[in-house]
Amino acid sequence: MNPYDLPSTWVLARRASRMNPSAIREILKVTERPGVISFAGGLPSPSTFPVDAFAAASARVLQEDGPAALQYAASEGFPALRQQVAAGLPWPVDPDQVLITTGSQQGLDLVAKVLVDAGSRVLVETPTYLGALQAFAPMEPEILGVRSDYEGVQLDDLRAKAEGARFLYLLPNFQNPTGRSMSEARRAALAELAAELRLPIVEDNPYGELWFDRAPPPPLSARHPDGCLYLGSFSKVLAPGLRLGFLVAPPALYPKLLQAKQAADLHSPGFNQRMAAQVMAGDFLQRHVPRIRALYRSQRDAMLAALEREMAGLGLQWNVPDGGMFLWARLPHGLDALELLPRAVEAGVAFVPGAPFYADGSEDPEAQRTLRLSFVTASVAEIDRGIAALAAVIRQATG
Amino acid sequence: MNPYDLPSTWVLARRASRMNPSAIREILKVTERPGVISFAGGLPSPSTFPVDAFAAASARVLQEDGPAALQYAASEGFPALRQQVAAGLPWPVDPDQVLITTGSQQGLDLVAKVLVDAGSRVLVETPTYLGALQAFAPMEPEILGVRSDYEGVQLDDLRAKAEGARFLYLLPNFQNPTGRSMSEARRAALAELAAELRLPIVEDNPYGELWFDRAPPPPLSARHPDGCLYLGSFSKVLAPGLRLGFLVAPPALYPKLLQAKQAADLHSPGFNQRMAAQVMAGDFLQRHVPRIRALYRSQRDAMLAALEREMAGLGLQWNVPDGGMFLWARLPHGLDALELLPRAVEAGVAFVPGAPFYADGSEDPEAQRTLRLSFVTASVAEIDRGIAALAAVIRQATG
Repeated sequence: MNPYDLPSTWVLARRASRMNPSAIREILKVTERPGVISFAGGLPSPSTFPVDAFAAASARVLQEDGPAALQYAASEGFPALRQQVAAGLPWPVDPDQVLITTGSQQGLDLVAKVLVDAGSRVLVETPTYLGALQAFAPMEPEILGVRSDYEGVQLDDLRAKAEGARFLYLLPNFQNPTGRSMSEARRAALAELAAELRLPIVEDNPYGELWFDRAPPPPLSARHPDGCLYLGSFSKVLAPGLRLGFLVAPPALYPKLLQAKQAADLHSPGFNQRMAAQVMAGDFLQRHVPRIRALYRSQRDAMLAALEREMAGLGLQWNVPDGGMFLWARLPHGLDALELLPRAVEAGVAFVPGAPFYADGSEDPEAQRTLRLSFVTASVAEIDRGIAALAAVIRQATG
Repeated sequence: MNPYDLPSTWVLARRASRMNPSAIREILKVTERPGVISFAGGLPSPSTFPVDAFAAASARVLQEDGPAALQYAASEGFPALRQQVAAGLPWPVDPDQVLITTGSQQGLDLVAKVLVDAGSRVLVETPTYLGALQAFAPMEPEILGVRSDYEGVQLDDLRAKAEGARFLYLLPNFQNPTGRSMSEARRAALAELAAELRLPIVEDNPYGELWFDRAPPPPLSARHPDGCLYLGSFSKVLAPGLRLGFLVAPPALYPKLLQAKQAADLHSPGFNQRMAAQVMAGDFLQRHVPRIRALYRSQRDAMLAALEREMAGLGLQWNVPDGGMFLWARLPHGLDALELLPRAVEAGVAFVPGAPFYADGSEDPEAQRTLRLSFVTASVAEIDRGIAALAAVIRQATG
């Protein structure tokens, strides 16, 4: 018998059973039909990408420093960029605590590798960022959702679930998926409780700069730096296509995260790091980010106005985020967002059902009523038409 | 008591104990003293980086396709680049089998996540690429070195150790660290044995294009595509600083690798992928890669000539690689490469001791005699001086 006729024996690791296509991603495929107004994506508005600044920076980096920019480089990251990151944070951070990552998604992967054993308890908000659930899953944690309100985790439930947890993962600013933020008072109380419980916090802050009226309160990491690991991103203030983020780690944790980084991809692209550092040199962000804020604020306002106008009497509830990219809504009793989606797409509008963002609650009827609406990808005219179409679908479904 | 006075409880995952600073990296720090001629690094020659082509490609990508290049993108990779990869391989590959990775190092991380459980047996060459040992380590395999000769793994020892192994990892072309390659006959016999044993092969081929006299025989993946997972890199034919590599997976494995990729960093930078695709469009590589081959060949020849000239009578043995970047040498009996290194650096020349490249043999006296010499970073004049200095150190140590 020809040995090639035998099937090969690829044995999958146990963790592979927890790696499954993102429900969101499958949903997004449906929503990508031409003509559909999408509130479903998590994409920043490409009109905010500083294409010209990148073109100038790219030309300059290659001209002045081409061979170095294209060579292998240190796993820690490009020194000038690490310094810019440290200097831009609102608490004292040594550049040696900064690790440049291949997007902040990689920060989540490294955190899980260094801190999570199979069966380790990890606490998350309810609901939480789906990409974090996916990044943690390969390390086979027991992920527990902490009961959360309009500000994030509730401290009584956190206390009840903290025993033995490796860390609490949260996004205090304009959270994905809900758009909610934690107040100063909640942050202060949470930081104190975490310190008392000796519960480490992994603080993810991709959206913090995208505030509309006032800057959010200081991060938890600023209050309790030795107890927090901070993740940041350039994806929302510059552009996601460079795949650049960073983490700030307590000095005791940094070496293991660095080893994990080195094993994962040696280093993030040095060319991209130099471009980002070049673009951000001087006061670029002080001029650029306010424009993103103003744009996203106008789009949020358009969506809120459209919701007020179109959803009157339909029983849809929604929040009013103070920044970021997302608004969170709840359908009337008896409706299920996942079931509603195909009808919405049929009517020319798409959203993301909320249930996949719940760590352990996708069977929860409350979760099944929720949905996420991005207000930053569609134009104001599209927002008006899309919300009207969604209202018609809900009206029909409840009628 | 102020709760912040309590130390925080960061509990490390068990795997973190296997993440340790690379011995090589620590060694390289010593060798980075100014004035030291280094044969230690694994860096391609920056004179081969097509800086002007990248500058033109970058300008064009940003001008013609800026917002898309800077936006989030598909985890699979940029379609045109996947097509170029598939078309450039010497066996029939569907672009849907190609996953663009953040350097081929990330391919190793994804492979380990999807195929390795704690305690899983993984087979490697003796010695093997240190970065692979580091990428596999977090998944806590039992790594076994297969006895190897001047062509790579020996089939009798492979048969003896294959039981239950998740895969055999190898670099058939101009291997790192040894520079050795597998003959046509060994490849044919190995592919047949692997098929008979139903042993999957992870074939890593970063150096295959860097041949000097004739192209190496076809990859194992070409002979046995369903039983092989193939890893490739743009780091040696374009530049490492873009962090772009790829893997080619059997269709049955692809979805899990894609999930692992998505969880790890969402996708590799779309801007970089477009730049690479733009640079490689047309016949660029057909013109560019022969220049790299000619340069590296002249440097290899210079190192071989210097070794013949300077090492006469010293008992140093070395091989004659047909391509790639490295040459492998063995010190006379009684010498230890790690012990010799500080004296060499003192004398102005650096190399990498071979022992860290042995999966389970760093205590092996044979391993301790070995060292790796890169011939591509230093100029011909530096090669002459560096080899002379190394000969003086060996002469003194044996005298």
